[in-house]
Amino acid sequence: MLQRLALLPCATAIVMASSLSFAQSPSPSGVKTLNPSGAIKTEGTWSLGRAGDFVFVAGMQGIDPGTNALVQDPEARVRQAFLNIRLIAQSEGASLQDCVRVTVYVSDLHRYAPMVDKAQAELWGKPPYPPRTMIEVRRLFDDDIVEVDSVFYAPAKKRVSLRARR
Amino acid sequence: MLQRLALLPCATAIVMASSLSFAQSPSPSGVKTLNPSGAIKTEGTWSLGRAGDFVFVAGMQGIDPGTNALVQDPEARVRQAFLNIRLIAQSEGASLQDCVRVTVYVSDLHRYAPMVDKAQAELWGKPPYPPRTMIEVRRLFDDDIVEVDSVFYAPAKKRVSLRARR
Amino acid sequence: MLQRLALLPCATAIVMASSLSFAQSPSPSGVKTLNPSGAIKTEGTWSLGRAGDFVFVAGMQGIDPGTNALVQDPEARVRQAFLNIRLIAQSEGASLQDCVRVTVYVSDLHRYAPMVDKAQAELWGKPPYPPRTMIEVRRLFDDDIVEVDSVFYAPAKKRVSLRARR
Repeated sequence: MLQRLALLPCATAIVMASSLSFAQSPSPSGVKTLNPSGAIKTEGTWSLGRAGDFVFVAGMQGIDPGTNALVQDPEARVRQAFLNIRLIAQSEGASLQDCVRVTVYVSDLHRYAPMVDKAQAELWGKPPYPPRTMIEVRRLFDDDIVEVDSVFYAPAKKRVSLRARR
Repeated sequence: MLQRLALLPCATAIVMASSLSFAQSPSPSGVKTLNPSGAIKTEGTWSLGRAGDFVFVAGMQGIDPGTNALVQDPEARVRQAFLNIRLIAQSEGASLQDCVRVTVYVSDLHRYAPMVDKAQAELWGKPPYPPRTMIEVRRLFDDDIVEVDSVFYAPAKKRVSLRARR
Repeated sequence: MLQRLALLPCATAIVMASSLSFAQSPSPSGVKTLNPSGAIKTEGTWSLGRAGDFVFVAGMQGIDPGTNALVQDPEARVRQAFLNIRLIAQSEGASLQDCVRVTVYVSDLHRYAPMVDKAQAELWGKPPYPPRTMIEVRRLFDDDIVEVDSVFYAPAKKRVSLRARR
């Protein structure tokens, strides 16, 4: 991240203005890049999420933000993937209840679908759950067992008013 | 669904206000959960669709809403998946022509891609067709042959005026 | 495309009004269908992209718009897929910096992920990069090596003002 911040002289000011996210300057169309405090680190050509009315979160694996390594236990790893998503969404004022789309990629549908169900049931707590697609693919990064795509609805107007109340 | 409705004392009023969808109360950001009359039933941690300017429809398989079982004939099953999508989209005032994104997951690209083409050609009737991605994955739920993700554009303002005219 | 235009008597007028895209008439909800000059040709039940605040681009392969055939060299082919995306996005006034979501489907994660990274690094130039998911699937059309899904944020109001300045 240091490398990235170095590219943006105004980054320090942004960080001071918001305790929630280390946002880079918005794109020409006003898209923000999300990098909330406590989130996992990125390396390479991708970001954690981007927002503009909707929050688009990168495919999340069960990486522990504390160690930036995959959580060992499969059930805990699946749960961690959703925790990572929740943190990024919350940094934009969106809750799991604002999730409009989940795509779950697993390495073994029979084995991991129940763990996904369990993690979602626990973290969402009750319906409504988001529309979902779950598929078994041939390979994920790190030969991982699960990766989750997600989109949240978080209109800018709403987010502004949420922040004003804090 | 009875189980879900039980969680929402206001559900009856919502049902009476709209003959189109048994909507749950919106999320903090105003996301609605879709469960239109005549749609397939959901079990587990997912919903049929959610809306807020865009309608996000869950991955749809060729399930007959009458029996909640997969349609037997492959060609009819592929078509049923799109019919299920259309019903959910229409419950929000969106037509197939308002579809902005389709992702088609199949178990055999050579075998089922032509059936997808045929079903779309018949149901859309003519261009424009939505942007599409079709990939062969290792496994779908129920060892199914096709599952379709979709997103529709249906601005709230437009939907309100459509409803007012009914 | 001639076949498509024949369905729309007003197409000529639209083409004359915009040198950027051969747009078909918008859907009931105002969704435009994108077919910018210089883009690859479509055959079958899909379009290159559709727009309404967001630009949804079809899964792009490394097809050379000049020949409508796949680029031979793997690295150049991966790069071409992103060039095709960029052209479609730019036709709506969106830059790569306005990309909010990328899903990369590859036939071999170990072999092609580095090429995807390299192409993105070169074409984006610097962070922020879009949120991304990359997965290895069993098969792509034409037994291809890479296909890329993408979504861009390009609010209509912004696009109008961008065009007014041209």
